[in-house]
Amino acid sequence: MSILVVGSVALDTVETPFGSCSEELGGSASYFSIAAQHFDKVNMVAVVGTDFPKEHVRFFEGRGVNLEGLQVEEGDTFRWRGEYGFELGEAKTLSTCVNVFEHFHPVIPENFKNSDYVFLANIDPGLQYEVLEQVGSPKFVACDTMNFWISGKKDQLLRTIEKVDAFILNDSEVRQLTGEPNLLKAARNILTMGPRIVVIKKGEHGALLITRDFTFAAPAYPVELLYDPTGAGDSFAGGFVGFMARCDDLSEDSLRLAVMYGTVMASFAVERFGVQRLAEIDTFIILDRLKELKKLSEFQLQLP
Amino acid sequence: MSILVVGSVALDTVETPFGSCSEELGGSASYFSIAAQHFDKVNMVAVVGTDFPKEHVRFFEGRGVNLEGLQVEEGDTFRWRGEYGFELGEAKTLSTCVNVFEHFHPVIPENFKNSDYVFLANIDPGLQYEVLEQVGSPKFVACDTMNFWISGKKDQLLRTIEKVDAFILNDSEVRQLTGEPNLLKAARNILTMGPRIVVIKKGEHGALLITRDFTFAAPAYPVELLYDPTGAGDSFAGGFVGFMARCDDLSEDSLRLAVMYGTVMASFAVERFGVQRLAEIDTFIILDRLKELKKLSEFQLQLP
Repeated sequence: MSILVVGSVALDTVETPFGSCSEELGGSASYFSIAAQHFDKVNMVAVVGTDFPKEHVRFFEGRGVNLEGLQVEEGDTFRWRGEYGFELGEAKTLSTCVNVFEHFHPVIPENFKNSDYVFLANIDPGLQYEVLEQVGSPKFVACDTMNFWISGKKDQLLRTIEKVDAFILNDSEVRQLTGEPNLLKAARNILTMGPRIVVIKKGEHGALLITRDFTFAAPAYPVELLYDPTGAGDSFAGGFVGFMARCDDLSEDSLRLAVMYGTVMASFAVERFGVQRLAEIDTFIILDRLKELKKLSEFQLQLP
Repeated sequence: MSILVVGSVALDTVETPFGSCSEELGGSASYFSIAAQHFDKVNMVAVVGTDFPKEHVRFFEGRGVNLEGLQVEEGDTFRWRGEYGFELGEAKTLSTCVNVFEHFHPVIPENFKNSDYVFLANIDPGLQYEVLEQVGSPKFVACDTMNFWISGKKDQLLRTIEKVDAFILNDSEVRQLTGEPNLLKAARNILTMGPRIVVIKKGEHGALLITRDFTFAAPAYPVELLYDPTGAGDSFAGGFVGFMARCDDLSEDSLRLAVMYGTVMASFAVERFGVQRLAEIDTFIILDRLKELKKLSEFQLQLP
C-alpha cells in the first residue's frame, strides 16, 4: 500500500545538553517519511524554499520517498530553532520562521490521490481538511496536531478529526482538548468526536491506544543514549502508519503491533540529531529492537 | 514466608476533587500491610498514640496482621493532612503532626526477627538501619524512602541501602538521589550503591525494575475511577514484597510478576480513600486485574 504524508519540511537548529546541530533536515513530514519508508512506499506533499539543499532532495529520493508533491516556492525554507534542558523534556522554541510555509496549500498530485493510508502531520487543521477534500476514500487516515491549533483553531480541528480514523496526540494535548485530566476518560471523549482510534504519546512513558473495544498500553523503549527528542512523535507516527500500510489489516493485533513499531521508530529517532539514525538503520535492526521491547515488557502469569 | 514491615501508622485527612476523608486509617505500614496480607502473613512494627481507634486495631487483626510490634505510646497518633489538585499528581501537604512518631525507635519482637522478607517503609533512614541491626539474615529486604531523607539524611540513607536487596522509589527521587535525569542511567548508578534491584515507581506511567541482568517495564493499570492517590506507592510495595514472599523465589520471572502484582495493588488502593478498597478485594479480584493488565500490554510479534 502507498502512504501519503502532508506536513512540514524544515531546517532545524537544535541545542541539547549533548551538543547542537545547525540547519539539520527536520519537520514533521521528514521524520514521518524516513521512519515510514522502512515499511512501505511514501508519497510526500510539503513545501520548501528555493534555498532547500539539493542533498536533502537526493536523500529523500534515495530512500524511495516520492517528492512529486514537494512544492518549491520562491523564498526560504521553514526554519525552527529550539533547545532542550537537562531533562530533555519539552523543547523550548527559540524562533520559528515559517517563510514559504506561510502561504502553503497542499496540492495532492493526481497519482497520490488514491493513497490508501494517509497521515496528516501537524499543520493548520484547515490545511489538513483541504487534504481530505482532495483524496479519494483512503482505508485509513491518521492525524496529528499541537497545542497551538487546539487553542487557536479548535473548530477547524474538530471538523478535521471528525473525518479521521486515528487521532495521534500527546498526553498534554489530550488533556487540553478535552479538559479532562484522566487520560482514559479523555480518550473516550475524543472517540465521540469522530476518530475510532486514539493514540496517546507519553514520551519516555510509552503510549496508549484506545478504541471502543480495547485499550493497549505500550512501554517506551528506555533509551540510554537519548540525544535529541525532536521528531520523536512524527517518527512514532511513521512507524505506526507505516506498519499499518504494510500489513494492510486493521485488526486489533495489527493496531497493537503498530504502536510497538511506532515506539521502536521513536526510540531510534532520538539517538541522533535529525533523521540520521532513522536513515542508517535497516529492517533487521528494527526487528531486533522490537524483540527487545517484547522481552522488556513481558511477564508470565502464574498463581502465587 | 512471613513478612516484616516497619513504617508509619497514621490518621489521614485528605481532600481531592472527588471528595474528602477525615482521620482515615493511613500511613505506609497500613497500606503495605493491607496489600501484602493478600499474599502472606504480615508482622507489623510501628507506633500509635493512646488515641488510636480500637476499630483499626481490630481491623488489622481481622486481616491477620500481627500487631505484636505495634507500640502504643502516651500521646496522639501521627496525623497527616493533604490535598490533591485536578490532575491528582503529587499531594500538597497541608500539615504533618508527627506526635508519638517523633521519638519512635523500632523494636522488633523476638518472633519477628527471623522474618524472611522485610520491608523498610518510608521512615528516617537511621531507623531503617536500626531494623536491619535487629533482624537475622532475611532472604530479601526492600526499602523505600522520600525526597525529605534524600536531601536531609543522605549519608544515613546510603548506609541503609548498602544493605538492602531492592530499593523501591519514585522517578523524581531516583533523579534527586543520583543527579542523573535518564532513569536507566540513574538506576545503574544506584545498583553500584548496594541494592541489586531498583524499582522505579512512575505513578500513572507504570514502573521499571532494573537489575544488572535485565530491565522490566510495566505499564500502569489505567485507572478510570482514580479517587485518592495516597498510599499507592506503599500498596505497590505490598503487592511486590507480598508476592515475592509468597512464591519465595527470587528468579527473574518472579521479580517481573511481583512488579505486576505491585501495579495491581496500587491500582486498587487509589479507587477509594484509605485502605478501604484494598481490604474489600479478594484473590480472585486481584487475579482478574492481573489478567486484564496482561491483556492490556500484550502484543504478538509478526513480521510486517
